Order: sequence, then structure tokens, then C-alpha cells
Amino acid sequence: MKPEFAQRLESLGTETAFAVSKDAAEFSALGNTIYPFHLGDIDIPTPSNIMDAALKAMKDGKTGYNPAAGLPELRTILAEVAGRERGLNITDENVVIQPGGKPVIPKFIQALMNPGDGVLYPNPGYPIYESQIEFHGGHAIPYGFIPSENGFKIDREGIEDVMDDNIRLLIYNNYQNPMGVESDMEEMEWIASLSQKHDIWVLSDEAYFKIRYSGKSHSIASIPGMQERTVILYTFSKTYAMTGWRLGAAIGPAKLMKVFAKLAVNDESCTNHFIQYGGIEALTGSQEGAKAILEELKLRRDVLAHQLNGIPGISVYVPDSTFYLFPDVTDIYKQLKTQSYEDFRLRLLRETGVSFCTREHFGTPLHGEDRKYIRFAYSGIPVDKIEEGIQKLKKFLVSASTAVPA
Amino acid sequence: MKPEFAQRLESLGTETAFAVSKDAAEFSALGNTIYPFHLGDIDIPTPSNIMDAALKAMKDGKTGYNPAAGLPELRTILAEVAGRERGLNITDENVVIQPGGKPVIPKFIQALMNPGDGVLYPNPGYPIYESQIEFHGGHAIPYGFIPSENGFKIDREGIEDVMDDNIRLLIYNNYQNPMGVESDMEEMEWIASLSQKHDIWVLSDEAYFKIRYSGKSHSIASIPGMQERTVILYTFSKTYAMTGWRLGAAIGPAKLMKVFAKLAVNDESCTNHFIQYGGIEALTGSQEGAKAILEELKLRRDVLAHQLNGIPGISVYVPDSTFYLFPDVTDIYKQLKTQSYEDFRLRLLRETGVSFCTREHFGTPLHGEDRKYIRFAYSGIPVDKIEEGIQKLKKFLVSASTAVPA
Repeated sequence: MKPEFAQRLESLGTETAFAVSKDAAEFSALGNTIYPFHLGDIDIPTPSNIMDAALKAMKDGKTGYNPAAGLPELRTILAEVAGRERGLNITDENVVIQPGGKPVIPKFIQALMNPGDGVLYPNPGYPIYESQIEFHGGHAIPYGFIPSENGFKIDREGIEDVMDDNIRLLIYNNYQNPMGVESDMEEMEWIASLSQKHDIWVLSDEAYFKIRYSGKSHSIASIPGMQERTVILYTFSKTYAMTGWRLGAAIGPAKLMKVFAKLAVNDESCTNHFIQYGGIEALTGSQEGAKAILEELKLRRDVLAHQLNGIPGISVYVPDSTFYLFPDVTDIYKQLKTQSYEDFRLRLLRETGVSFCTREHFGTPLHGEDRKYIRFAYSGIPVDKIEEGIQKLKKFLVSASTAVPA
Repeated sequence: MKPEFAQRLESLGTETAFAVSKDAAEFSALGNTIYPFHLGDIDIPTPSNIMDAALKAMKDGKTGYNPAAGLPELRTILAEVAGRERGLNITDENVVIQPGGKPVIPKFIQALMNPGDGVLYPNPGYPIYESQIEFHGGHAIPYGFIPSENGFKIDREGIEDVMDDNIRLLIYNNYQNPMGVESDMEEMEWIASLSQKHDIWVLSDEAYFKIRYSGKSHSIASIPGMQERTVILYTFSKTYAMTGWRLGAAIGPAKLMKVFAKLAVNDESCTNHFIQYGGIEALTGSQEGAKAILEELKLRRDVLAHQLNGIPGISVYVPDSTFYLFPDVTDIYKQLKTQSYEDFRLRLLRETGVSFCTREHFGTPLHGEDRKYIRFAYSGIPVDKIEEGIQKLKKFLVSASTAVPA
């Protein structure tokens, strides 16, 4: 006899994009060239000044425990820097250091959502939102996006239709994965006003806040009345190419951050000690490394967008932030007489080696959604490989459209 | 208007020992000498070969994501090494790398306990067990210990009295914090037999498995019928003085470890990439560093035990494992006309600078418990300071007992 697992696991989701990595690895193992556009990882080294600071701290004996909320010095500096970038007046008491941005999501849900509460979350969106809401007994309510000439706009009517008093939390991921969506100030203010009117908490996932190529990022927390009801998910991962370091933070109301620290005592004891000195250097040292990362990403974006828009049947809006493109592939999807998103993805992988995620990796398509989208990440593939891969894709699609007229 | 926090927070506990650190720091800031026996941290550097391996990996670009379950190479090696030490035949599929041993506790609870389930846990014991059981809606049922000439024995009658079909999990922390308790094989087999008879899951917290000065450690998972129902909490923290690195693992049935990996995708994405190469070096490289750590700890244990047993009114059993002593201080507690454990702790801190945790930091004393205990950790204080601190303590207690006859 063997005891059973807990029932709550039936509500636990995952990142299905990992299956895409697996398919790509298997196809590569057969001797094929892979063009990895599926990865949200960065193939650029962490700036050396950050590595050196962490190394020095390790050698200096920063190998024991540190406070659950993080090194006081890092909390103070992060409050200064992140506060300045967002126009927020915050202190160390508003910051809890975390082993990555990810752990902020379960802590936000556990600290603020009661079982049965409704939580609005973006779809397409990062799949862990829905997973964590459902896993902890909440009611995950997706909100969609409407294509426009300026990218995608939040479907406000859709939100108004489902809005009720049961909804207590909203997840907002401006500078968004997978679409590269960005609110204008009017849209951001609408979300802020909604959350105040209905008295709901907002998780503002700002992972890509500093991955932007023109313009200026804004935090919803800076809108009057929002700071007291917003938790910012902050991470070092993207800006400083530190995904594998696992260093991030929650930024929010001091009283709530005490709760986050208590959850940290329970969940992880503390974040790695010496890497936090890398975080201090990242925020206070030379920004040349971060600038070079951003320049490289911009170059890739420009090349990828240009190449994709050169393929008949594909059109893509070019966002100013994130390292994702979210092309509309409806025409070629139909042309190829595709059975499903998975069919589409696997066929193009096998024919061309181009590996990408589809819209389905970011949530179940919403009712009435008739366009087809895929996601290209350009953070893990250099410019020459981008060109080579997309040329192969183009060649295949052009020949397929000649062979199989729509 | 500001929205409320979630109700589940009312059931969230913490490690109250952090308050002891705070008191010690405040007393120190007034210019007093502190003798830190309250810390479960280690003041010995991580062996340099481990540091060098992590540094090399970082410089070699191991700064991106790695699998949620951990580096395949580390999982394989850990299965070999931990399996050999425990007499278990396990593979990489039985191992999920974690950012420390701590995250194994919430994952065990979330994966295996339904709300309302009973969970047996040791008291005195690590306070996060009770916190996590209650936080996730379980019913935390303490089991106690009975002093004997060979340390403390699990109160089996107490367990039999409360045992019912509602109890689905048991937490077992052999080589225990705070008491240094160790089961003989007969006691371990009794726990194994109980868990099989009642079909319950066992979390075997083996954080101190390799912190032992004589004899041999055994894992309850090696008892026939136990491997399929046991999750081992493994950590690099103590053996290699890596508490602040945050590197540990869950070891358990393959099907369950898949669930743990899925929880890891949700909770933390992955463990820091480059420090896992430090873990590989720890397991496969020179063990001279670990041996030196153990020798230093043994010396401290011998000095501390000898000194404590030289104080009238204190008696302490000297365990072969962990870096804790759990002296019985009932006589001096009474002699000093103490009001409470906190009164006792704070009085001795202020009179002597000797800082320690009391029995109450490891759970609410059980019904009928009439002896008084405190916990001394010797992992964070060198031998000369141990001698100096305990001499001060002795001097104060001897003069107090003369001044205030019992």
C-alpha cells in the first residue's frame, strides 16, 4: 500500500514551454541545426563587475545565513534605485529580497488571496499566474488583449463584463511576456482606477521594466492611490543577464513586506548571501554591461522583426520593450492547413529547425479569439543565427504556399 | 480603503529564534561582549575547493537558467553519494535539487497533505514543521521525547495515544535540532513500522546526517518498505559550511519527485546555476574541508559539554551528532526564581552576555513537561569564547545560588 498525493496537485499548472525545449533538444540530437527562439533565457554573460563583486563576497566569507528579507544594504540601495526609476518614495522596509522574481508570485497569492477569491490575470500571459491562483484555491479569471495598430490593448470591455465583488486581486504585466505589450498612460490609469474602485490588490510584474529600446517605462505603483495596493515583482535577471543567479525582490507596502519576509523564513530561509553583493554592484557600479546587453538585444529585435515582416503571411508589431515578438501567423496557419498550434509548431521545427512557442504556451485561447500567434524570443540566439533561421523559414513557407495554394 | 491580507496568514508561524539574535545584537551594540550560542549558523569558511568550482562555473558562463529539478550531473552524483551513504539504490530521478534544505518542507506538505489531515511532528523540534502544516490547512500533532540515560527517546506511548486514521504524514528529524536526539535501530524501526501500518508519508529531515563525531548515521528510508513512502531532506549547508549558499535537495520516489520539480517550476524556476558546480565538487572532490569542519565542531562540543557539566544545577547529555547541546537547567531555573523561559534567557544574557535559545523556541512545551531545557549551538562560536562565556555563566550562577538559597 502506498499513500496518495494531495488533491491540490490537480490544480497545479506548469510552464509547458519546457516541452518545447525538450523537442528542440531531441531534434538537435538527431544532427539537425536548431534556431532557438523558444528560450526566454539570455545567452549573454553577466557583466564581469557583477561577477567579481559576488566572487569577492564569497571569498570574504559571506557564505553564512543572512536575513530572510535580504541584506540590509541591498534592500536600501534597491529601494533608492528602483524607487528613483519609478518615481516612488520607498525605503528598505518596502523591499524583500527573493531568490529570483518568480517567488514573488506565490507569495503575493498566499499573502493576499483567500480560497474562492477571483483573480484577474493576463491571457496570453506568463502561465505561472494561472497555476498559482488555482493551486491556492482561487478563481483564475483571464483578461484578453485586442490587436491594434500600436500592438495590443487590454480588453477593457471584457474585464467590465466579468467584474464583480468576488474579484480581489489583479495581475498586471506591463512590458509583457509573451506579447511585448505596453500600456499607454491612459490604459494604465484605467487599470489603476479599476483596482481602486473595486478595492483590489495589484501584482505589477515588472521583470522587463528596464528592457526597453526607446521611450520610458512607468510603474502602475506611481499612480496616486496605487502604491498602497501594489506589489512590484522586481528582478535582476533580464537587465543584467542574471537569469541563473536567482536574484529578485518584492517591493510593496511595509506591513505587507513583513508578511513576505515571514513567508521567506518558511519557504527558503534566505536568498544566497554572496550573490546579493553582485546585486549591490549591479545597482551601484558601472552600467556599461547593462547597456551593452540592451544594445545587443535591440540589434536582434530589429533584424528579427525586419526578417519576419518580410515573409508573406506573417505580420508583427515591433514593441519598444521586452525581448519577444508575437507575430500574427493566421494566414500561413490556414495556408498550411494546420490542425492545431502543436501541429504548426512541430511541422515548422521539423522542416526548418526554427523552434518557437505558440500562443497556447501562454494560456488557453479565449472565446472568440480568431487570429493565430506565435512567440519568438530573441534573447538566446545571435544575429547571424536569427538571419539564417528566418531565411530557412521563409524559403519553406514560400515553397509550401506555391505547392499548396490556399 | 485598503484591501485585507489573506486569512491563512493567521496560521503562519516563524522561527522565533530570530528575536534572540536581535536581543543579542542590541545588547552587543551597548558595548557588551556577547557569547553567541543561539546561532545555528556556522562561522567556518566553506572549503576553498568548493568555492573555486563555483567561481569557475560562473566565469564559464553558467549564469543562465538550468532545469527546475537541478543540473542532471549533480542529480546523478548526489543519487550515487547520498544513496551509498544510506544504503539506497537510487538514481537522478529520485533527486530534485533545491535552493536549500528548507524548501523541501513546504513542498512535502503541499504535495502530500490535504487540508484537515493530521501530521505528527517532533516537539521540541524545528519550528517550521508546525508552521507549514498549519499554514496549508493541516492539523499539527506534536510528539514528545522522554529523557533517558542515553539522551532522549521518542515518546511512543504518546504517539499511540493520539494515533488515528486521520494522520497521513509524519516528520522525523533524526540527528535532531534542538536536542541532538538520535534513534537506536529499534526506535527507528518502530517509527518505520508505525508509518507502514497506518500508511503514512514520512519526511526524514537529515540535515545533520553527516555532522557526527562517532558511530554511523542511518536513514529511515533504508528500512524495507520505507523508501517508497519517505522524502529525505538533504542539504549541503552543515557538512560543507554552506548555509548561506542555499543548496539542498529532496530525495524520494521518482513519481513524487516529478511533482516536486513541477512545484519548483512554480515556486522558484530553478536553483542558482553556478553554485551547483560547487555542490558537484563538494561531493566528488577532496573531503579534507568537511573533515576539518567536523574536527573543529567536535572540539567545541567536548569543551562546551565539559564546561556545562561543571556548573552545579546544569546537566547535559552529549550526543554524537548535530552541533547542539540541550542542557537540563531545571534546578537553576528554580533557584533563580525564574518567571518564564524568556525571563531566564534575558536575565542570563544581561548578566553574562551568554546568548542561547530556550526550549520554547522549538514549540510550546507539552502537557506534563516538568523539566526545563535550553539549547546551546556551538557552530558559531570558537573554543576560547566558549570557555570564556561558560566561565562567566558559572561565576554568575554560583554567586546567585549563594545569594539566593533555594
